[in-house]
Amino acid sequence: MALLVKKFGGTSVADIDRIRNVARRVVADYDQGHDVVVILSAMAGVTDGLIRLAREVTEFPDKRELDVLLATGEQTTAALLAMLLKSMNYPAESLLGFQAEVRTDAAFGNARILDIGAHRIRELLNARHIVVVAGFQGCDAKGNITTLGRGGSDTSAVAIAASLSADACEIFTDVDGVYTADPNVCSKARKLPRISYDEMLEMSSLGAKVLQIRSVEFAKKYNVPVHVRSSFSEEEGTMVVNADADMEKIVVTGVTSNKNEARITLKAVPDQPGIAAKIMTPIGEAGIIVDMIIQNPHSGGKTDLTFTVPKADYREALKIAERVGKEIDAEEVIGDEKIAKVSVTGVGMRSHHGVAARMFSTLAKENINIMMITTSEIRISCVIEEKYAELAVRALHSAFGLDGKNSDE
Amino acid sequence: MALLVKKFGGTSVADIDRIRNVARRVVADYDQGHDVVVILSAMAGVTDGLIRLAREVTEFPDKRELDVLLATGEQTTAALLAMLLKSMNYPAESLLGFQAEVRTDAAFGNARILDIGAHRIRELLNARHIVVVAGFQGCDAKGNITTLGRGGSDTSAVAIAASLSADACEIFTDVDGVYTADPNVCSKARKLPRISYDEMLEMSSLGAKVLQIRSVEFAKKYNVPVHVRSSFSEEEGTMVVNADADMEKIVVTGVTSNKNEARITLKAVPDQPGIAAKIMTPIGEAGIIVDMIIQNPHSGGKTDLTFTVPKADYREALKIAERVGKEIDAEEVIGDEKIAKVSVTGVGMRSHHGVAARMFSTLAKENINIMMITTSEIRISCVIEEKYAELAVRALHSAFGLDGKNSDE
Repeated sequence: MALLVKKFGGTSVADIDRIRNVARRVVADYDQGHDVVVILSAMAGVTDGLIRLAREVTEFPDKRELDVLLATGEQTTAALLAMLLKSMNYPAESLLGFQAEVRTDAAFGNARILDIGAHRIRELLNARHIVVVAGFQGCDAKGNITTLGRGGSDTSAVAIAASLSADACEIFTDVDGVYTADPNVCSKARKLPRISYDEMLEMSSLGAKVLQIRSVEFAKKYNVPVHVRSSFSEEEGTMVVNADADMEKIVVTGVTSNKNEARITLKAVPDQPGIAAKIMTPIGEAGIIVDMIIQNPHSGGKTDLTFTVPKADYREALKIAERVGKEIDAEEVIGDEKIAKVSVTGVGMRSHHGVAARMFSTLAKENINIMMITTSEIRISCVIEEKYAELAVRALHSAFGLDGKNSDE
Repeated sequence: MALLVKKFGGTSVADIDRIRNVARRVVADYDQGHDVVVILSAMAGVTDGLIRLAREVTEFPDKRELDVLLATGEQTTAALLAMLLKSMNYPAESLLGFQAEVRTDAAFGNARILDIGAHRIRELLNARHIVVVAGFQGCDAKGNITTLGRGGSDTSAVAIAASLSADACEIFTDVDGVYTADPNVCSKARKLPRISYDEMLEMSSLGAKVLQIRSVEFAKKYNVPVHVRSSFSEEEGTMVVNADADMEKIVVTGVTSNKNEARITLKAVPDQPGIAAKIMTPIGEAGIIVDMIIQNPHSGGKTDLTFTVPKADYREALKIAERVGKEIDAEEVIGDEKIAKVSVTGVGMRSHHGVAARMFSTLAKENINIMMITTSEIRISCVIEEKYAELAVRALHSAFGLDGKNSDE
């Protein structure tokens, strides 16, 4: 008899028929004697609809109140599933974030889970109830409702699984697992049977939308095995687990690309201490998150400073850069929105050499110019021209031996 | 500087424009230095929509889960008004039932308020915040979400006003006050400037939909002056207050009619102790609320027993009556859905004689047959044929001197 935490995303609860499908999967486990905790997202599109409603009221809705509004989405699906299970004569109860004691900080709209009391969840499980928890939401120390940001229900699920020491945390979604590359870009992409927490972390932060990055951090910290799989089939998906020796034999696990960033360069600024801080401080104060920062020597005791920001913040960041550029006497400030970041990820890189060289030569062979490079222990990213993104993914996917044999191409 | 509790009903918050109108009224008071607590209903139609959604899941939705679902309606409007007020640079905060400490029993769907902590409301008022409370909802001792039944936001408002010892409780609605009769039925109906708690109680229970009956009970118990008025005009409405000498000079305050009941008669049942209980016990066990019960002697040691039930429960009640009728050897069981209850109400009846006589003779003059009669200290009700309801209201309205001089008829 296992304790299972099962999370269903927005497309899995998009209408009453799909909620019936969720109920069927849940009671199948319950009937086998397992204890089941279900975490639900809002119906697909509902959260966006609520944001639009708030925008009708005011362009910049207060974040505390927006969380009160958004929390209704998951409240609705949790109530509907619980009443459906009860109508099928299964003992079930819905819990909202505050009732499940999901305690968070007070960062409305993007709160972090501090801890989970879960007394009531345990009480209900002991009474052999199916517990249905509204995902995405929590409660701060003052009793205010908070939400966990886009994809936050993943984090609700993993955190609840951790606090209950669940045997498994299943994330049901509209894709059937984690792929070596986006199948829409690379037809030879293969589903990975397993991926390590670290690889999943890198891939999530690089734009793979399968799991919220914080949920992977939680899973790694508390060693929660996460199973990413499809709501619409019985097939096994991808297990996200600790790295083992087998995984380290493979050099590269996946290839990702991301077109959501833009690049800003300040040319020929004085190469002296504090110059990077002069630019980055106002950018940070404007709430803009900088991803890559690179400094290259220019001639004549000058230096070029280049950084990337989310496309949504590009215009504001460029304005700040132009203002600071004048103050510090930069030769020129250049912006570029047409870039893509292509990355290869794999825990095997820790013990394999020549990965970077193979990546650069593969791109060179396709005549793709590399603008910026950053690396981590298990990842190499290159910024290239946006138009080459798909070509680069396919070329790297082949070069690192990831192409599937049974692909339909 | 007064402490004002202002409640806005569903039509008053039906869309964003109307919520803007609510905000204007609220800040007008705040700007004059008053402390303001706003209680909101769900947008008109939203609660019915949620009930329909639940019915798509199951014909008989679990009541606890239905309350979780329904509570989203008021949560939405509270969040929207609070974010609107903040966008207008007013300090404001929304509170849900559990946050405002609206503690109720666990009668899901129709919970009664036990007490209100209101610590957080007071804290916010002390900091000169406008407090926006989601009406209709509370929280039981276990932390479950409860709702207060149709019109429950009225009760939220009056209970919160009582717990804060507010100077006034204003109920903003789509009518501009309490009338001597339904203006749709009787064109000579006049708006009452004042009405006593007891009269309002009788009129609410007789089908005047202006205020939830429990809200009036609360207002009476804690002596909260309630001002019923229109959201869409600045005009004074009707004050619901304690009766005074002036009010008692007027014999009849209002005439109401109600077509929501049906009548069941068991003819010629044995006139012996326990016979009424034999019929009423299974009716009560089926959750059917009986309004009037009348027993008339029949010839030969027999008696006729007649009672009325809500039309929605008529078929079920009739089935039960037919079954019991056989058991106790009733001569006949007769049902009648085409009835109306016409009532005159007034605290003045306590000291005036001849009210009943005038009511009966007025109906007789119009050739309206009276089927059943019940009275309270301040009310007389007659059951008549449904088709005469409007005629009876107009005739009684004239006979008791209620016709307005400036009516447009």
